[in-house]
Amino acid sequence: MNTNKSELKRKEKKEKAPSVKIIPLGGLDQIGMNITAIEYEDTIIVIDCGLAFPEEDMLGIDLVIPDVTYLKDNIDKVKGLVVTHGHEDHIGAIPYVEKEINIPIYTTKLTMGLIENKLREHNLLHTVKRKVVKHGQTINLGCFRVEFIRSNHSIADSSGLAIYTPAGVLVHTGDFKVDFTPVFGETIDLQRYAELGKKGVLALMADSTNAERPGFTPSEKKVGRTFDTLFAEHKNNRLIIATFASNVDRVQQIINSADKYGRKVVIEGRSMVNVINTASELGFIQIPDNTLISIEQMKSYPDEKLVLITTGSQGENMAALSRIAANIHAQVSIKPGDTVILSSSPIPGNEKAINKIINELEMKGAEVIFQDTHVSGHACQEELKLIYALTKPQYAIPVHGEYRHLKRHSELAMEMGVAKDHVVILSNGKVLELSKESARVTGSVTSQGILVDGLGVGDVGNIVLRDRQHLSQNGLIIVVVTLEKHSNMLVAGPDIVSRGFVYVRESENLMEECHDVVDEALGRCIDNNITDWGKIKTAIKDDLGGFLWRRTKRNPMILPIITEV
Amino acid sequence: MNTNKSELKRKEKKEKAPSVKIIPLGGLDQIGMNITAIEYEDTIIVIDCGLAFPEEDMLGIDLVIPDVTYLKDNIDKVKGLVVTHGHEDHIGAIPYVEKEINIPIYTTKLTMGLIENKLREHNLLHTVKRKVVKHGQTINLGCFRVEFIRSNHSIADSSGLAIYTPAGVLVHTGDFKVDFTPVFGETIDLQRYAELGKKGVLALMADSTNAERPGFTPSEKKVGRTFDTLFAEHKNNRLIIATFASNVDRVQQIINSADKYGRKVVIEGRSMVNVINTASELGFIQIPDNTLISIEQMKSYPDEKLVLITTGSQGENMAALSRIAANIHAQVSIKPGDTVILSSSPIPGNEKAINKIINELEMKGAEVIFQDTHVSGHACQEELKLIYALTKPQYAIPVHGEYRHLKRHSELAMEMGVAKDHVVILSNGKVLELSKESARVTGSVTSQGILVDGLGVGDVGNIVLRDRQHLSQNGLIIVVVTLEKHSNMLVAGPDIVSRGFVYVRESENLMEECHDVVDEALGRCIDNNITDWGKIKTAIKDDLGGFLWRRTKRNPMILPIITEV
Repeated sequence: MNTNKSELKRKEKKEKAPSVKIIPLGGLDQIGMNITAIEYEDTIIVIDCGLAFPEEDMLGIDLVIPDVTYLKDNIDKVKGLVVTHGHEDHIGAIPYVEKEINIPIYTTKLTMGLIENKLREHNLLHTVKRKVVKHGQTINLGCFRVEFIRSNHSIADSSGLAIYTPAGVLVHTGDFKVDFTPVFGETIDLQRYAELGKKGVLALMADSTNAERPGFTPSEKKVGRTFDTLFAEHKNNRLIIATFASNVDRVQQIINSADKYGRKVVIEGRSMVNVINTASELGFIQIPDNTLISIEQMKSYPDEKLVLITTGSQGENMAALSRIAANIHAQVSIKPGDTVILSSSPIPGNEKAINKIINELEMKGAEVIFQDTHVSGHACQEELKLIYALTKPQYAIPVHGEYRHLKRHSELAMEMGVAKDHVVILSNGKVLELSKESARVTGSVTSQGILVDGLGVGDVGNIVLRDRQHLSQNGLIIVVVTLEKHSNMLVAGPDIVSRGFVYVRESENLMEECHDVVDEALGRCIDNNITDWGKIKTAIKDDLGGFLWRRTKRNPMILPIITEV
Repeated sequence: MNTNKSELKRKEKKEKAPSVKIIPLGGLDQIGMNITAIEYEDTIIVIDCGLAFPEEDMLGIDLVIPDVTYLKDNIDKVKGLVVTHGHEDHIGAIPYVEKEINIPIYTTKLTMGLIENKLREHNLLHTVKRKVVKHGQTINLGCFRVEFIRSNHSIADSSGLAIYTPAGVLVHTGDFKVDFTPVFGETIDLQRYAELGKKGVLALMADSTNAERPGFTPSEKKVGRTFDTLFAEHKNNRLIIATFASNVDRVQQIINSADKYGRKVVIEGRSMVNVINTASELGFIQIPDNTLISIEQMKSYPDEKLVLITTGSQGENMAALSRIAANIHAQVSIKPGDTVILSSSPIPGNEKAINKIINELEMKGAEVIFQDTHVSGHACQEELKLIYALTKPQYAIPVHGEYRHLKRHSELAMEMGVAKDHVVILSNGKVLELSKESARVTGSVTSQGILVDGLGVGDVGNIVLRDRQHLSQNGLIIVVVTLEKHSNMLVAGPDIVSRGFVYVRESENLMEECHDVVDEALGRCIDNNITDWGKIKTAIKDDLGGFLWRRTKRNPMILPIITEV
C-alpha cells in the first residue's frame, strides 16, 4: 500500500515537473541563420536573429531571413530579443524582423552598437527599444531571468547566456572559444560556468561549429605573433591584409604591428569601416594617433610605410579585395613587390572564388600569404569538453551547426557523461519540451527561411526559383501567335524569339525548322477544331520541346503567347 | 682579330641553335583541360587532349573542350597524339577533337583501353589509328622521338615522356607522384630520369598540382592499410565506399580488404563499372572469383557480408552516392548502422555539395568516415625536387596547374638551381620558342575553351551565357504588343508575361502598374509619331526597367515583342 502511494506521488510529481519549450527557428542547417525561441507559459524570449547568405541554387537571392510567423502569432508572450554577439548570422535579420514584430533588444555594448548601425539604415532607431547589458548582469524577461556571461569569440564583447526558467537553468554558450590570452578583455568566465554547474544546469546548448575538430583552438594572440613576423620579413613591401570585417581584435593586432613597424594604416571596405568606427567610438579598439590615413592619402606615402586592411577575404564578388585583384579598384592597383596576406580561412563554398583572387593577385606580381594567418573563433573538442565538465548539464542540446556537426557534438556530450536519451539533436522548427523528467519533441512550427531579393521580402518562392533555374540552364524560346477573334484563324506569326539558348545567327536553320514545327502544330489544331488556347499552347510546347530535345539534347523553357485581334 | 672571328662563330652558332616550339593549348588555368603542342619545322605532336568541367558562371554547359584551330590550320604537320594517362582532363576531349582532326593516338595499354571506350561511344573506333606503347619503348613521330617512361599516379599505367627534338630533350612528367610501394606495377622509373639527366635535358615540364604542399605524398598502399582497419572495426555494418571512378588501384585495395574479410563486392555507377571492366579485361585489376555480385543480388546477402563501391565522392549531382544520400536510388537506401567511407578529398568547388551529402547520410543514420581514407596522386615539393635533382634540366616549364601553383613550382625550380631566366611560366595559347641558347615567347594562338551544351559544340558563347546569367538572377518580363500594319495603331496588348521574376498572384498590383507604364510609353510613341519598332521597343524597355528598379531594386530581362496584323 505504502509503495503504491509513494509511486502515485512520484507520478503526480512527474506529471507536474514544469517544462520549458525550446524552439530553434533557424541555425540547425547548412545556411545557419541563428534564431531560437525559449517559451514558458506566457513568456517567450528570442535568442539572436541572424540572416543567411543564399545557397547556390537560390538564384538571384540576396539574403535569407528567418520566418517569425510563430512569434507573430504569439506576440503577446514575446518579452524580448537577447543577442549573444554581433555577427551577421546572429544580428543580420534584426531590422527585417523588427519591422514585423517590434520587440525590445538586450545585449552588450559593442553588439548593440553594431545592431544600431543596422536599425539606423532601416530608419528603425527610434522605434525599437534597446537596453545595453553588462557581462555578469541579469535581466528579467517575463518569468525568465537572463544572465549575460563573458565569453571569447572572433568578435569582441560576445556573451554566453544563463536562462533561469521555472523548469531549470538553460546555459547557452553562444558562439565561443576558450581564449586564455584574448586580445581584448578577459578569458571566458569559466568560473561562472563552474558555479552554474555546481548549482545544477538543466540543459547546455553549446556551439557545434568545430565539434569535428580535435584539440583546442589557438589564441587570437597567435595571429598577432605571425603578423609581427610577417611585418619584419616584408619591411620593403606594401602590405595588404584581408580579413573579416567584424574581427575587431584582428584589426587591432594589425594596427599594433603597423605601429611597431612605423606604417600608416588604411581601412578599406564599407562594412569594415563601419565596424571599426563603431568599435573605436565604444572603446573596443585602440588606434594610436596619426596611424589611420584615408585611402586618398596613400599616394603620399612610400609602399614600405603602408598597410591596407581590407574586406573580401572570402572572395566576395564586389568586396574591396576582389576589385583590387581584378584591377577595377579606383585607388589601389597591385604591382610586383606587394604582399597580400589572407587572414582568414575559406568558408565552405568560397574556395573557388578565393582561388581566383589568389591567381589574379599573383599574376600581377604580388606574393600571397595564407598560412598561419588565421585562427578559428569556435571551440574545438577539448574546449567543448571543458564546458561540459564545468556545467555538467542534465541535457545536451547541440546548437549552431549542420547535422554532421550536431551529431559529432552529441557523441562528445555522451562521452562527457550525458545520458544517451538526454542528448537531443533538434532540427529547425521543432518544439522541444524539456523538464527535469523528460525531453520530448511535441510539435513543430514554420521555420523555412524567407528569401530577400532586392526590396522584395518573400515574393520569390519555389516556383520563381525553379523558373530561374530552368532559364539559367537552357534559356528560353518564346513563340508569339496572333489569332483572329471568333474565327481563331492565324493572322500573324508565329514569331519566334530566343534568349540564352543558342547563337541565333549560327543557328538560322534550326530557327527555321522551329518555325515549321510550330506551323505544323498550329495546323493540326485548326484541322482538329481545337480552339482552346491552353490546348494550343500545349501542342506548341510539346512539339517544339520534343523537336529541340531530339536535335540538340537541350530543354529550353518554351513560352507560347497567344494574342487575339 | 682572332677574338672577333671566334665571337662571330659563336654568334653564328647562337643564331643557328635549333629551337623547338612549346604551345600549351590548355591546362594552365583554373579549369585545367590539358593539351600541349610541341612543334619543330614540319612536325607537331600533341600531348594529351583533356576536357574540363564548366565553371560556376558557365550556366547550362556540360563540358569544355580545347580549341584546336591551330592544329587544324597546321594539320599536315601533326604527326600524332601522345597520351600520358587516362584521366578525363587528359583524354576526355579526344572524341570531339578526333572528329575535327583525325590523328593517330599513341599511349599505354590501359590508357588506350579507356580511350577506346570513348571512341566506341562516338562511333570513331574504326576511323582513328591507334598504337599501344610499352614503358621504355620509343616511337618516331616526324623529326621527334618520344619515349614512354614508367610513372606513378592515381590511375594505373601512367607515363612520363622524353621527347627527343633537334633542339634537345624535353622531359614531360605527366601527372605523377613517387610511390615506392605502388599497388600495381613498379615505382616510377627514377633511374631513367637520372640517365636522361646525365645525358642532358633541355627542359623539364613537370606537374605543378601540389607544388604548394611541402613533403612527400604518401603511398597508395597507406589507404589500403586504413581500409583493412576500417573493415576490422566495422565487422557488423554494411560498408559503402565512394571514390574516383578511375582509381583502379583504390578499387583493387577495397576488393583486397573485402576478400580478406569475406565480403561480396558491388560496383555501382556507370563510369566506375566501365573503368573496372576495362581494367579487368586488360589485367590491371585482380578480382577473385565469386567476389563481384550485381546490385540486384545485394538483397540475398546480410549487411555485414557486403561492400558497395560507388562513384559520387565529389558530390556530383546525379552520381550514385548523391542518389543514395537523397534516397532516390532504385536499389540502395541508407539505414542506421551503415558505414559510408568517402575515399577522396574535395576538389575545390565541390565542398558544399559533399557537405550536403554527408549531412543527408548522417541524418539517415549512417556513420560517415572521411579521415585518412585518401592520398593524392600528385607529387609534393620533395618529389618535385627529386625529379629536378635527377634530370637537372636547363629550363623549367611548370605545367598542370593554376597560376598560383605554377608560380610556387617556379620558385622551387630556382631553389633547385635552374637559373631565374630559365624558368618560364606560360599561359594557355602562348608560343614558347626554346633552344639551348634562349627561351622566348614569340606569339600566341587561339586557346579559349569551347563550350559543349547537349549536342551543341561551340554554339553557346558569351552572349548566350550573359543572357542565361541575367535570366538566372532576375527572371524576365515579356511585353507583347500587336500593331496594325501601316497605321501602327495598337490593336492588341500590351500583354505582359513574366517568368522567374515574382509570384504573379501576390504581385497583381505590380503587374497592373507595369501595364500602365507600358501603355504610357506606347502613348508617348504614338503622340510623337514614332513608328520605328526599335525605338518603340527601347521606350518600353527603358520605362519599364526604370519603374521596376525603383519599385523592386531588381533588374529583370525585359523583352518587348511587336507583331503586326
